[in-house]
Amino acid sequence: MKFGIDVGGTTVKIGVVEANRIIDKYEIPTIKETLFEDISSFLKDYISKNSIQNIEGIGFGLPGNVVNNYIYNLPNIGIKDIDLTKEMDKHFPGVLVIAQNDANVAALGEMLYHNEYKNACMITLGTGVGCGIVLNGKVLEGVHGAAGEVGHMCIAGEYNFSCACGLKGCLETVASATGVVRLAKYHYKEYETKLASEFTAKDVFDLAKQKDPLCLFVVDKVAYYIAKCISILGITVDVDVYYIGGGVSKAGDILIDAIKKHYKTLALFAVKNVKIEQATLLNDAGMLGAAGLIIKDEQ
Amino acid sequence: MKFGIDVGGTTVKIGVVEANRIIDKYEIPTIKETLFEDISSFLKDYISKNSIQNIEGIGFGLPGNVVNNYIYNLPNIGIKDIDLTKEMDKHFPGVLVIAQNDANVAALGEMLYHNEYKNACMITLGTGVGCGIVLNGKVLEGVHGAAGEVGHMCIAGEYNFSCACGLKGCLETVASATGVVRLAKYHYKEYETKLASEFTAKDVFDLAKQKDPLCLFVVDKVAYYIAKCISILGITVDVDVYYIGGGVSKAGDILIDAIKKHYKTLALFAVKNVKIEQATLLNDAGMLGAAGLIIKDEQ
Repeated sequence: MKFGIDVGGTTVKIGVVEANRIIDKYEIPTIKETLFEDISSFLKDYISKNSIQNIEGIGFGLPGNVVNNYIYNLPNIGIKDIDLTKEMDKHFPGVLVIAQNDANVAALGEMLYHNEYKNACMITLGTGVGCGIVLNGKVLEGVHGAAGEVGHMCIAGEYNFSCACGLKGCLETVASATGVVRLAKYHYKEYETKLASEFTAKDVFDLAKQKDPLCLFVVDKVAYYIAKCISILGITVDVDVYYIGGGVSKAGDILIDAIKKHYKTLALFAVKNVKIEQATLLNDAGMLGAAGLIIKDEQ
Repeated sequence: MKFGIDVGGTTVKIGVVEANRIIDKYEIPTIKETLFEDISSFLKDYISKNSIQNIEGIGFGLPGNVVNNYIYNLPNIGIKDIDLTKEMDKHFPGVLVIAQNDANVAALGEMLYHNEYKNACMITLGTGVGCGIVLNGKVLEGVHGAAGEVGHMCIAGEYNFSCACGLKGCLETVASATGVVRLAKYHYKEYETKLASEFTAKDVFDLAKQKDPLCLFVVDKVAYYIAKCISILGITVDVDVYYIGGGVSKAGDILIDAIKKHYKTLALFAVKNVKIEQATLLNDAGMLGAAGLIIKDEQ
């Protein structure tokens, strides 16, 4: 039995996982000052109430930069510079603890859930754009924890919008929820549209489904850049399947089909036949993936 | 003791490797019809003459597409569709045989030689542009054998030159030896130059060192695109060190320094401090890397 802990800005999701399935789940509030004490207390209570004898480990998905279990920064929570191995060892001496950033963990969760491939990427289109890369069943962290930071792949030079990271033309500036809105505003006067002066990414996709000219154009552009990113992942990490997740992915087929269309023209021949699918797990991916980090090194 | 076999278009380099050092090396001609028989005969002779009792395995670097020891295509030799495991098992039953494409193998060789990092990429700038990716001491092959095919990363949209692969704007169209010449021809009338009407990539770098305006411009452009590629590798596979190898890399500091300059402006903050170095092993990298494929799975 493993615990998979998905730490978010407002709540911590705690999953009890056996054989890659969530058998029980809970939520506690995220309180910056006592985060790991709160989680540990909850786990101890659960273990005691359920007379659990043996836990394989505790996996964490954290919203920020984590390398080798060292938490550099969780900006949305306001936590910095914590050695998670030490911190958890106070409460659970000797228990295996492994943490990764939430995009990596979600990718692993999605992969484990489908249980079809061992090499997968999940691109998460939310407020920003994240990506987790799973190779041979293990999350690729990267030497600086930057593997999968494709939100900052500068492939949208056509617009060259400034990104919060300091670079220009990042994928995130055109393919995140705010990026979708930014693109629609940029082209607002060029196409007919039923979009009001203020709107969300969801509005853009909803109107695109009704064949609104501006929104159709924007969805096609967003899909193009995501496809371009996948074509580059294809010749760098070369996996079987790319899951598209996050709020923007709820647009569904209109987005996924357009990504597939562009991918065919952008991909190198050797990697043309990959799967591109909407992610299905949504809220549970974090817990399942976090627990999935706990694997013995027999592989 | 391991054998590292580096198969080229005209010769096969055979290295005898112990503790990641080449202790003996030989060359035999590449003969399409009898390639693996010739190699096996040579190895059997060597083993017998030197009374070798135990070999750990035979590693191959092959110029083409190889996945899981299946040789799909070696275009420069004219060999297709060979199951190398079966083929070598005829001659060396039970001996561990592992093959990879030559760019991967050269990257592994360079990494083993320096023995400083376990995560490295080597970008080879030759007739084409190849790249090997080594993660945690192991070559990343990719599901379709396409991991590291960064020569076909379409990041030179500014020129959008057609590539042999069918795509446009591939890195290879501007950063290979022919790419360097192509760029210089493209800009030939825009800058003063001492370049004759026919010239090589080496001429461009040699004149750049003498501050020839056209050649300085071209070297800077080539370096920009290589830096852009490294900035993308930084947020996909995120390794410690990037070695620049192949014929074009012999230009030395003038190229490497320009790549570093552009990299600083193109890289995401988290990966700004990576090493970018000229590869040093050259001809021996293939043999050393091929032997380096032979590792037991205790890792």
